[in-house]
Amino acid sequence: MERSGVITFTTDFGLTEPYVAMMKGVVLTIHPKARFVDISHQIRVGAISEAAGVIMEAFPFFPKGTVHVAVVDPGVGSERRLLALEVRGHFFVGPDNGIFWPVIKSAGRARIIELTEKHFFQAPLSQTFHGREIFAPIAAHLARGIALGGLGRPMDDPVQLDVPSPFEENGILHGEIVHMDHFGNLITNIDRSELERFLRTAQPVITVGSLVVRGLHRIYGDVEAGNTLALINSADKLELAVNLGSASEYIGVKEEDIIGSVVQVKKS
Amino acid sequence: MERSGVITFTTDFGLTEPYVAMMKGVVLTIHPKARFVDISHQIRVGAISEAAGVIMEAFPFFPKGTVHVAVVDPGVGSERRLLALEVRGHFFVGPDNGIFWPVIKSAGRARIIELTEKHFFQAPLSQTFHGREIFAPIAAHLARGIALGGLGRPMDDPVQLDVPSPFEENGILHGEIVHMDHFGNLITNIDRSELERFLRTAQPVITVGSLVVRGLHRIYGDVEAGNTLALINSADKLELAVNLGSASEYIGVKEEDIIGSVVQVKKS
Amino acid sequence: MERSGVITFTTDFGLTEPYVAMMKGVVLTIHPKARFVDISHQIRVGAISEAAGVIMEAFPFFPKGTVHVAVVDPGVGSERRLLALEVRGHFFVGPDNGIFWPVIKSAGRARIIELTEKHFFQAPLSQTFHGREIFAPIAAHLARGIALGGLGRPMDDPVQLDVPSPFEENGILHGEIVHMDHFGNLITNIDRSELERFLRTAQPVITVGSLVVRGLHRIYGDVEAGNTLALINSADKLELAVNLGSASEYIGVKEEDIIGSVVQVKKS
Repeated sequence: MERSGVITFTTDFGLTEPYVAMMKGVVLTIHPKARFVDISHQIRVGAISEAAGVIMEAFPFFPKGTVHVAVVDPGVGSERRLLALEVRGHFFVGPDNGIFWPVIKSAGRARIIELTEKHFFQAPLSQTFHGREIFAPIAAHLARGIALGGLGRPMDDPVQLDVPSPFEENGILHGEIVHMDHFGNLITNIDRSELERFLRTAQPVITVGSLVVRGLHRIYGDVEAGNTLALINSADKLELAVNLGSASEYIGVKEEDIIGSVVQVKKS
Repeated sequence: MERSGVITFTTDFGLTEPYVAMMKGVVLTIHPKARFVDISHQIRVGAISEAAGVIMEAFPFFPKGTVHVAVVDPGVGSERRLLALEVRGHFFVGPDNGIFWPVIKSAGRARIIELTEKHFFQAPLSQTFHGREIFAPIAAHLARGIALGGLGRPMDDPVQLDVPSPFEENGILHGEIVHMDHFGNLITNIDRSELERFLRTAQPVITVGSLVVRGLHRIYGDVEAGNTLALINSADKLELAVNLGSASEYIGVKEEDIIGSVVQVKKS
Repeated sequence: MERSGVITFTTDFGLTEPYVAMMKGVVLTIHPKARFVDISHQIRVGAISEAAGVIMEAFPFFPKGTVHVAVVDPGVGSERRLLALEVRGHFFVGPDNGIFWPVIKSAGRARIIELTEKHFFQAPLSQTFHGREIFAPIAAHLARGIALGGLGRPMDDPVQLDVPSPFEENGILHGEIVHMDHFGNLITNIDRSELERFLRTAQPVITVGSLVVRGLHRIYGDVEAGNTLALINSADKLELAVNLGSASEYIGVKEEDIIGSVVQVKKS
């Protein structure tokens, strides 16, 4: 498998601390030509499923042979395993806590390695920053071209993430709000194919709490400024939005209160 | 025109979402050697004129042949046109909503192309993320060296931005606060040459609401800590500041309340 | 001395303004192959000692020959001197205000140059943005390989930083909280060697205000979720934390109130 030389990072480290830079410094010491793209360092602290969703959404847009490092790792230093894996020509490095479960599940087949070859780790290990001491050097070696199998032993029972799936009951499609984005858009776990299978030729009536949205639009500008709408977004998910405004402000909720809210879709 | 291989990004996407990274991934897939500089992703949501000012201020410091991508695009997917242009050896890619108007206006001459060659776009278009589907691939092709003219058809009526201009009335120079920066400095739309033409050899008395500042200083440290001052800043604009402090805290205003405030300059 | 071609940046500029991008543009104009790593741009405004600590913690993880630019510079344009220095094969560029004092102090020997060769500076100088006009071009020339000595004249009396040191009194080791990180961990100025010398074989009892923590743990997961603990962190400093939680929330303090708080360590 060719390598692109690109390494991406997804963490809950924030942008104030030098932690991300230290990981990049470690990589550059091993692989001076490595190039970096930050996916997000603003994952909510410890929010493994949020990071998992972000990585799943972003990775397919990178060249094959890219190495994706994920460090949302509240169990750092404990007995949780350390992983490197290959899915559809992309490499992933991080803790075995479910963060790569959507990626693994999406693939017909994943090669998963438990990282046991400790001579690749930085010594001494502090046990509280495996991002710098383990994942960064492993990513550097992968980006340089080392074979995945040389990093440890094959495994096939990675920690799974309990991701809520939409379901149909009494003629209603039930989903959840799983994300509120920077623009205040409310993103559900219902994807295009599930919605189309449920609706067939009917139009939807979508309810979240007191908010009711009728029909599906193509773009935000299809309704007047300040009006609500539903659309299939660029990640192929059902999304509730306000044109030139914020759905979250419109219904007066904060992110922590809206995540997990029930979304009901009926046929009109 | 040579290309520098550098692509800059200015967006209102924030730093939490993976949207910027996805654009970079798309670029790398087309142009593996591209290099990126983020100008800002913290433009206020939908604030086209703020983004326009940031790009105008930053672009001249980059090497010629750099491609500047701007995505503050509240009309995404609507009938608004898509542009690529060349000004003073720099390339710009983004929506036709005025975001490049200061750049175009500043140039003696701009070559502007409406993006109509759809085989450069990513398929299928989601219609809600043209940054990823259109601007990123176009930027990649431009950074690789494609001729601007190959991307679409020439046009010469880009959307203009209604930028407030200072004016003189009854012996007073009237301007506006157009930006409050990270340090709480208040930046006006009055530039060095306008101020010098107005003042000639006189000293200014500058009034914004209840704040009155006399004279012009050269650097922040020219007044005691905690005192107000006015100076011509590094972007050649008249700026009100507090040495080792924040002018916005000094007068007790938030960004949303100070932008657009009237600035009056008299001769002392 | 070989150069890695990498330039790092540590500033208090925030991520909204185009200031950091403009510095990178200036570098690329002089040294088109330069590569960048941002250490932090979220240093509290004017907090020289915070920036000094971040640089000291991060720089050793980069390849030798890296150039580290630091711009927390409340005295910009005043008579304060401008420095470039070499410590343990790393280069540093910034104002002479103490920001590099921990780096200089940590080295057996530092070569320090006052920047006086003004033909390397950008003309004209605005006097309010030396990061762009002086430090960026100097960093570019250093990354390209210019000899340090060619940038100015040797000096050996850099501004020192008044960093609080732990001390022992009446059988108690006294330190301070010097940082609260993104996770709410409270980081002290007591390092591993000082603590071990004080404790010998005893166990510590650590007090900060009303918070009392007994013993030292190895990793966060060594205590139940929500419980407090003390450990030696990845920077070899004594740190107070809450497993899967925030020590700062636990004791109900904000960053500005906890920094400088007294930490007392007794032997149990």
